[in-house]
Amino acid sequence: MGQTVAGEKSQTVESQTDVLIIGAGPAGLMAAYWMAVCGVKARIIDKRGMKVFTGQADGLRPRTLELFDSMGFQHRVIHEGHVAVEANFWVPDENGKLTRQGPHCSPKINESNHHNMLLNQGRIERFLLDTIRKHSDLEVERGIIAESFEYDEKLGNDLDTYPITVKLRTLSDEEANPSHLSTEGSGLQPVNGQGGVLPDDWEELIQKSRFRQTNTEIVKAKFIIGCDGAHSWTRKQVNIPLEGSSTENIWGVIDIVPLSNFPDMRRLGTITHSSGTILVIPRERKLVRLYVPVQTVDGNSSTRFDRSSITLAKIKSRVQAIMSPYTFDFQICDWWTAYQVGQRVAPAFNKGNRIFLAGDAVHTHSPKVGLGMNMSMQDGFNIGWKLAMVAVGAANPDILGTYNAERHPLAEMLLEFDRLWSGEFMETTDADGPAALDKADRMVHVVEKYMDFADGLRTYYPASSLVWKVSEEEGPEAARNLVPGERISPIKLRNQAEGNSKWTTRLLESDGLFRIIVLAGDVRVEEQKKRVEALGRFLSGEDKTKVSPLHRYVPIPGKKDQIGVVTIHSAPWKEVEFFDFPDILRPFDPVMGWGYDDIWCDNSCTWDPHCGGQGYEKWGVDRTRGAMLVLRPDQYIGWVGELEEVEDMTDYLDGVLVKMPTPEI
Amino acid sequence: MGQTVAGEKSQTVESQTDVLIIGAGPAGLMAAYWMAVCGVKARIIDKRGMKVFTGQADGLRPRTLELFDSMGFQHRVIHEGHVAVEANFWVPDENGKLTRQGPHCSPKINESNHHNMLLNQGRIERFLLDTIRKHSDLEVERGIIAESFEYDEKLGNDLDTYPITVKLRTLSDEEANPSHLSTEGSGLQPVNGQGGVLPDDWEELIQKSRFRQTNTEIVKAKFIIGCDGAHSWTRKQVNIPLEGSSTENIWGVIDIVPLSNFPDMRRLGTITHSSGTILVIPRERKLVRLYVPVQTVDGNSSTRFDRSSITLAKIKSRVQAIMSPYTFDFQICDWWTAYQVGQRVAPAFNKGNRIFLAGDAVHTHSPKVGLGMNMSMQDGFNIGWKLAMVAVGAANPDILGTYNAERHPLAEMLLEFDRLWSGEFMETTDADGPAALDKADRMVHVVEKYMDFADGLRTYYPASSLVWKVSEEEGPEAARNLVPGERISPIKLRNQAEGNSKWTTRLLESDGLFRIIVLAGDVRVEEQKKRVEALGRFLSGEDKTKVSPLHRYVPIPGKKDQIGVVTIHSAPWKEVEFFDFPDILRPFDPVMGWGYDDIWCDNSCTWDPHCGGQGYEKWGVDRTRGAMLVLRPDQYIGWVGELEEVEDMTDYLDGVLVKMPTPEI
Repeated sequence: MGQTVAGEKSQTVESQTDVLIIGAGPAGLMAAYWMAVCGVKARIIDKRGMKVFTGQADGLRPRTLELFDSMGFQHRVIHEGHVAVEANFWVPDENGKLTRQGPHCSPKINESNHHNMLLNQGRIERFLLDTIRKHSDLEVERGIIAESFEYDEKLGNDLDTYPITVKLRTLSDEEANPSHLSTEGSGLQPVNGQGGVLPDDWEELIQKSRFRQTNTEIVKAKFIIGCDGAHSWTRKQVNIPLEGSSTENIWGVIDIVPLSNFPDMRRLGTITHSSGTILVIPRERKLVRLYVPVQTVDGNSSTRFDRSSITLAKIKSRVQAIMSPYTFDFQICDWWTAYQVGQRVAPAFNKGNRIFLAGDAVHTHSPKVGLGMNMSMQDGFNIGWKLAMVAVGAANPDILGTYNAERHPLAEMLLEFDRLWSGEFMETTDADGPAALDKADRMVHVVEKYMDFADGLRTYYPASSLVWKVSEEEGPEAARNLVPGERISPIKLRNQAEGNSKWTTRLLESDGLFRIIVLAGDVRVEEQKKRVEALGRFLSGEDKTKVSPLHRYVPIPGKKDQIGVVTIHSAPWKEVEFFDFPDILRPFDPVMGWGYDDIWCDNSCTWDPHCGGQGYEKWGVDRTRGAMLVLRPDQYIGWVGELEEVEDMTDYLDGVLVKMPTPEI
Repeated sequence: MGQTVAGEKSQTVESQTDVLIIGAGPAGLMAAYWMAVCGVKARIIDKRGMKVFTGQADGLRPRTLELFDSMGFQHRVIHEGHVAVEANFWVPDENGKLTRQGPHCSPKINESNHHNMLLNQGRIERFLLDTIRKHSDLEVERGIIAESFEYDEKLGNDLDTYPITVKLRTLSDEEANPSHLSTEGSGLQPVNGQGGVLPDDWEELIQKSRFRQTNTEIVKAKFIIGCDGAHSWTRKQVNIPLEGSSTENIWGVIDIVPLSNFPDMRRLGTITHSSGTILVIPRERKLVRLYVPVQTVDGNSSTRFDRSSITLAKIKSRVQAIMSPYTFDFQICDWWTAYQVGQRVAPAFNKGNRIFLAGDAVHTHSPKVGLGMNMSMQDGFNIGWKLAMVAVGAANPDILGTYNAERHPLAEMLLEFDRLWSGEFMETTDADGPAALDKADRMVHVVEKYMDFADGLRTYYPASSLVWKVSEEEGPEAARNLVPGERISPIKLRNQAEGNSKWTTRLLESDGLFRIIVLAGDVRVEEQKKRVEALGRFLSGEDKTKVSPLHRYVPIPGKKDQIGVVTIHSAPWKEVEFFDFPDILRPFDPVMGWGYDDIWCDNSCTWDPHCGGQGYEKWGVDRTRGAMLVLRPDQYIGWVGELEEVEDMTDYLDGVLVKMPTPEI
């Protein structure tokens, strides 16, 4: 990782990297995923000597799970995680007796193939690390801290330069593995007799005692992504503040195996009582997480709240008071902590086109909305694919500007949601009788208002070179429910060549390809078949009157194409053959053969009730005429049109991707 | 692993183990799983220096997949494997043109939650090894061969003795990793640019070059399981022959990425032509397996067929001839081999109650039925749980006799199926015109006749101490479709405490527990609720007139109970509460809390179309009155009755499990 500077006597070495990621939490690992997939020369460092194993964030929203599916490890999340779909609000009735209001279930529960889940951050990081390993030899360098930073702004426009200089220092074992675990609440107590650490993490634990040399390194980087948390060192280097609330809330959080006669101990919900409101979250391995508000403080005060005054015993008695007359106790605590946080957001998530910030580094809020890890990972994913493609010369550097434009408004929305939602936990004045019932209604209302946003079913990405809007609210006539700027809604399809069913979330892999989705309609209809054949002639280049986008752009190193083509037709599966479609829609490779994975059918499947053959309807597409769209590498819709609007589509792609140099003749 | 014998100068050591498993293929690993789960002192050796990575067996039947689910790794199989449900039979029409007959789909396709899949044996072994590691430190000792065998039969009846003496020798690297891979067809050619070996197997590859000392060891064992393949060394030691056909068939098999214009190259099927019939099996990683009959030879002849006369090129031209006029070629061959096999079965799968044989060691047949790995694993699973429970003193040694009684008839059925099915591939006389169409019909008929057996949907286990039959064909009146001797048919249920859905195949874990399934019926009906409460009083021991089976038997070391209780009621989920059920059905543990995983509901679930609330109907149980059954640790039905038939149920359990010693007063 770099070479010794000649003549220098200390252990300082100097090296170059294209992308330096600071912080290997969920946001940093998502960004690193893209570096691995696109073969970017990158480094990722983290000051902690070990990954986390237990506790921390746990909420996983449908859109995050869809991304996991596109990355290839969602099956592990489903296997280990806990689904929590319905919520109950417990409030005192007119006689002061705690009563259940609910269960409330989202009316859009089946909009995604994935539902809200709970699984601790340590496991998610494990899956991300394993996935990164599958794609490259990029590894997290742990126990490394960034100590100094220089940015030569005038080099910013020349992408071949290394304008960023960062000094890294390898921490000693004591620095890298501080003993805060014992004061914060150990994450390593036994659960189910196996300990909180699962077998595939055992190797990481051993690394703890690995011998470390304290030395320093000067890294020259083209780009930097700061994913280093609420107290982000990177953010401070570029003088971007966090702005927002002047008050901060103190929360206690415990992951325990409950001993309680509360009827909904294994159901998602809130419990409101005159002494406060708590949030109950059932989790994996028989664990339940409880969020307990402690108090509100002045966030601008120079004296921070003394966190050590909050003990596990104090949190427990507070829960007991709120749950009363139901009992509450535990023998096993997997993890607990207390923290202080206010709603704050950075005014910008980037500095120019070289320095980017993601996750908690640019937005802080209460943990109660179950969104922190999701927003952070989606930040990292968003900047990740864009920066990776720019770094390898495949995408126009202009697209880097869309990172802030797309993610910043969502952070504002997150804070708005959190202000309303966590407010309900802090105030207790109306916690009895009819007022309490109102409170339950109000909480349902807040949840419902922000549900689409929170679950990631809507993202509201604005118009840009990456998003060609028709209107703000809906897609074009050809595909009413395919709105540019939104993620594509999952449907399950049958493979034409095989007959097997697959969710689009698995089919549309996060592999760095822009994809043209040809909704070929009913190809049994002669006129429609002709339209598809005309499209085939255009894509294959046979139609010399227009320019095909295929083989027009610089591919990601190691990949054959920069554009994928997926065809989804609407005719009955048995009435159409794979070879009925134009060659270019199922291209032949001299080694790998025909593109059997390229032709799909929106038809029901006897042995799979998820595959109902109603995908066209869900997408608002006419079953005969079909439509066409372009998906970005993150499965967000960039462009939508008719099968004939090929020139417009190529214009869209020309604005984003880098054209191959014209061969000299 | 044993100590040096004092005074001996060679490297021979002597050791003791309760169970010695010879052969770490699918059968041996399934048996080893049970040793790991039950904490049996066991060893497992294999003469090969490395596990297999590619090729070999690949067919996985629904019942096998149900077992994987109960062992906790079926999600990995689903993620990597390929589903193949429908079959097509291609035969020449009256004009000699190859035409598709099909697709044919099993009418019982939704009987199981798992469907026929293809995934190579190497991956299955990986998953088994990882699962074994989760439960214990039992590891496969590779590159070890058994060389001598003694059995002191007169010690057979005293289970505390070690009547078996086996001499093991550690092979040299050359012996353990013979170069046959290069003559047989390398398993390590690149597929998809990643090589056939996936990241989680990389470590195994490195072990190849590990330094080995050639030394010997004398192992004294209480039990031995020979899972050492068709040429089983173990079987020969106990003079059990293989009996059967005098002819043997020579097959070629290739795993390739096809370059072909055959329309069903990615669909399961057969192709019949005047020059022969081949079997096409689509697989994972774009691979397709083709089985190609070569010729029939005299299996009793002293000169074995010269396998080296079959080359990859020869197999390819044979496929090309049969597929003509469709093209066929490939650039990538992941694995190929040629082998000679006849239908043979051992007259007994055991010698006394100490020595057992499983898998290919006791039945050989053509690979074409896609059953070999399944039968072998189910053998290993069957003897595995029985022997493990006997070895730890939890089960009556008499149950060991049921291994042969249950598995031997199935091997006979397997051979019958294979004789009919593979016969269709060998003869070619009727391969044209109307006769060919008859052939397609005949093949469909053979498949349909043996489908229940092949898929493992029916097992026909006979009456024994483990299976209390009512009649041969159906269950008792209380549960018409729950037939003792058959596996329990999977249904998806909602957890009462959580509302989440789960398949019984996951819920009923293979953890060594016998389980009482209380089908509590509709507990909103007062009379029914009283019946359930009476059952509760019986199980809790509160009803002093009868003996409760709970806490009556010796548990497996490290487990609290020997009997699990799972309750499944039929009332609507929202109209019943977890705490409505008697305590004993959801027992409280002072550390782990209430048994939230113990009460389930047969009710539909909005967000899960698999969970339809029709489980009682599938099982033939009255929704109001319910029923009761006992499942063996392998999820086969042992006993069925009414909620009141508690004494009969205890009698059943008394016949199988070992009672705890009466405490001296």
